[in-house]
Amino acid sequence: MELSPIKVLQGDEREPDRPAQPGVFPSREAGMSAQQPAERCVDFPVSVVLPAGGTGERTGLQTPKQFCSFLGRPLISYTIQAFERVSWIQSIMVVVAKENMDLMMDIVQRFQHRKVRVVPGGSTRHRSICNGVLALGEEEEEEEEEDRSSAGRPKVVIIHDAVRPFVEEDFLHKIAIAAKEQGAAGAIRPLVSTVIATTSEGYLDHSLERAKFRASEMPQGFTYEVISQAYQRCTESDFQFGTECLHLALQYCGTNAKLIEGPPTLWKVTYKRDLAAAESIIKETLSRSACVLTGGVTRAVTLAEALQKAAGFVEMELDVIPDLTGERARYPFGEWNFIQVSVSHGCLSEVENLLLALEAENRALLHPLVVIWVHLSSSEELSVSLRAAEPVAIMDLASSAKLQNILLYGIQLHQSKDEDLWERSVSKVAEIASALIRERSPALVGQLLQA
Amino acid sequence: MELSPIKVLQGDEREPDRPAQPGVFPSREAGMSAQQPAERCVDFPVSVVLPAGGTGERTGLQTPKQFCSFLGRPLISYTIQAFERVSWIQSIMVVVAKENMDLMMDIVQRFQHRKVRVVPGGSTRHRSICNGVLALGEEEEEEEEEDRSSAGRPKVVIIHDAVRPFVEEDFLHKIAIAAKEQGAAGAIRPLVSTVIATTSEGYLDHSLERAKFRASEMPQGFTYEVISQAYQRCTESDFQFGTECLHLALQYCGTNAKLIEGPPTLWKVTYKRDLAAAESIIKETLSRSACVLTGGVTRAVTLAEALQKAAGFVEMELDVIPDLTGERARYPFGEWNFIQVSVSHGCLSEVENLLLALEAENRALLHPLVVIWVHLSSSEELSVSLRAAEPVAIMDLASSAKLQNILLYGIQLHQSKDEDLWERSVSKVAEIASALIRERSPALVGQLLQA
Repeated sequence: MELSPIKVLQGDEREPDRPAQPGVFPSREAGMSAQQPAERCVDFPVSVVLPAGGTGERTGLQTPKQFCSFLGRPLISYTIQAFERVSWIQSIMVVVAKENMDLMMDIVQRFQHRKVRVVPGGSTRHRSICNGVLALGEEEEEEEEEDRSSAGRPKVVIIHDAVRPFVEEDFLHKIAIAAKEQGAAGAIRPLVSTVIATTSEGYLDHSLERAKFRASEMPQGFTYEVISQAYQRCTESDFQFGTECLHLALQYCGTNAKLIEGPPTLWKVTYKRDLAAAESIIKETLSRSACVLTGGVTRAVTLAEALQKAAGFVEMELDVIPDLTGERARYPFGEWNFIQVSVSHGCLSEVENLLLALEAENRALLHPLVVIWVHLSSSEELSVSLRAAEPVAIMDLASSAKLQNILLYGIQLHQSKDEDLWERSVSKVAEIASALIRERSPALVGQLLQA
Repeated sequence: MELSPIKVLQGDEREPDRPAQPGVFPSREAGMSAQQPAERCVDFPVSVVLPAGGTGERTGLQTPKQFCSFLGRPLISYTIQAFERVSWIQSIMVVVAKENMDLMMDIVQRFQHRKVRVVPGGSTRHRSICNGVLALGEEEEEEEEEDRSSAGRPKVVIIHDAVRPFVEEDFLHKIAIAAKEQGAAGAIRPLVSTVIATTSEGYLDHSLERAKFRASEMPQGFTYEVISQAYQRCTESDFQFGTECLHLALQYCGTNAKLIEGPPTLWKVTYKRDLAAAESIIKETLSRSACVLTGGVTRAVTLAEALQKAAGFVEMELDVIPDLTGERARYPFGEWNFIQVSVSHGCLSEVENLLLALEAENRALLHPLVVIWVHLSSSEELSVSLRAAEPVAIMDLASSAKLQNILLYGIQLHQSKDEDLWERSVSKVAEIASALIRERSPALVGQLLQA
């Protein structure tokens, strides 16, 4: 076949490298979203195999990178959720090394994953993926015995890496559809560096023409038939030394995989620097919106509306509402940060009520939630006892909230009739609150900051 | 020539992916370090060409990534310093697009780069590099006219990318030596993904055997003769479509480049996620050491020594000294953060003196410096006026320090005879101070935090 610069399906041209709706924020129940576009429907059963047996040697860390913690949650849990939130994905086979089975079961339980089964891996990547594919077949048999309503053996199996947490539904959809039509499909990306062939003595032999080659990435999709046949027919040597499932499909089933250019978000967390990049993406995604609660008090509403216009929040969506009763109870179900504006003394009770509501909904299960108490005092002549009491009270409250994975901070500002002074204070509140939400520093919880 | 898994020179096995002595912290004067190992000496002239014409389209940002700011300094300035700190590198030709010449000149002046000349680039990468190489030749002629002590035309030219800021001296040394011996040398890295060839219709044609190929990275080194001949002999098409200098050396000079496996730190800032990774590496490197100043007061020394043992500082080197006079004046010359422990009231004067000393030395020229004022109060019965005055005073001081690129924060703790309470307070100080140093949040300067 002729080699030439390829035409490939292009991903949507969105902001590069950041997920639009990353898996870190699944809907609580799969399929609850009413806005799901019709073209995303998949009318055949799809399951996932997620090999997670890596040892993480390239990060230079003790912990394999799929188990490294990001804001208190292991990376693999983010990847699992990227699949769980997709309504048309039925089940996820996570394949881990035998010594990590217990750890993985704990993760599934702790973060309430619902579609996951954990199976032990083999000695190589291909053996582990093969175990996962076989387990999908067995699962079907078990389920048919117990429950006739089971959707049966998957038509398509998606294979992904545990360390690519930012895969998005629309790309999974493209892979699933292409896999069903062609038998196999895989994500590709342009090469970042020139690839060169080397002599056995370590000298340049020749360099490849970059435009004719691509990096093979994940996810890949196969019909159940193709991937299971490929593993039945391949050799011991393939199991031992091979890395590329698309190659097995070509060699043993004659299936030329369809290649689809994926977004940069498909990148694989490989080196230690990638851990920092992943954390930054997760934090940025968690910092997109905040809900300002005013209790309906005029002065609080005025401050809240001024905050909406302040530059510190320029990239953050800020909603102003009185409280979380009635219709507005939906807020804790979205992925929001909370800013409680209080104008009276003893007003920590408003924050206490907010914390109780958030804890009751278990809203901080998947990531730490930021709550900021903004105290607007009417004059500078506060009584001495209050000045001393507030820092202690908010510190105590923050200590107990932290146990529930809620990060509570306080900001104080004084009402002022001097317009310049007032604007400066509001800007400062916005700047501090925005930094607290973005940085999520556990060391600073309970501090009462001055605006 | 036979293709086979290659033997290459291995980099030192250090902590992967983080520079041991990154260029973000150059010595003030090249060659002032007495510990430079003898084997690093290079007895022939070496210069650098740094093409910086990229438009940064892959990051999805307006600003080309070499000009993106990290802690207030553009990425290219970090890369320049990685070369300036190497005593045996004579000059650095930075090649930028014509429209960025002024911007680049400003950067050179503002961050006091001493070895740099800026030349305008061409329409492609090869044309830009060629301009840089030609300018090295011209420079020699100019210098010879003005100054006979000039070291003359470089023996070796190192070509690097402006967006690979973490290159280290020992690797540059390997490249320079190999380039002199072989005529050409280049950095390689293992492939992270399988490379595949694609058909013109976007299907898999075949996959390459990963072990036989490598990614070609930067830096590369050439004798001046080889690289200038290669550019004299190559075609318009090479100038237009080529990307690989090693290829030109092979094709037009018959020089097979020596390939040397580099550390992961050579990676190229390409996508938006890489900006976060780079910032994290820079911040981590700036957070390795802090100097605790006690004024020699016993209670302050006791607290400082307790901080040295506290878990918050487990990965930070903490030196305890009374002040910065005499021999200890060397501290501001190292890359240190500062913690001033004070036990008396009105003690902000100690911090004021510290700030004056740091500003006089222009220590925050290259990156924001963190200064933390830790106030140990002897009892809880502070006078009301002090309680109110301190937060205002430190906020004012911090506002003016910020203009000098110094980030000042405060932490208050109370002396306690209850041992548990005291230990908790000390731990809290360590936790907060460590977080402030690592996060370097401009929004939180001037805050007086409670331990």
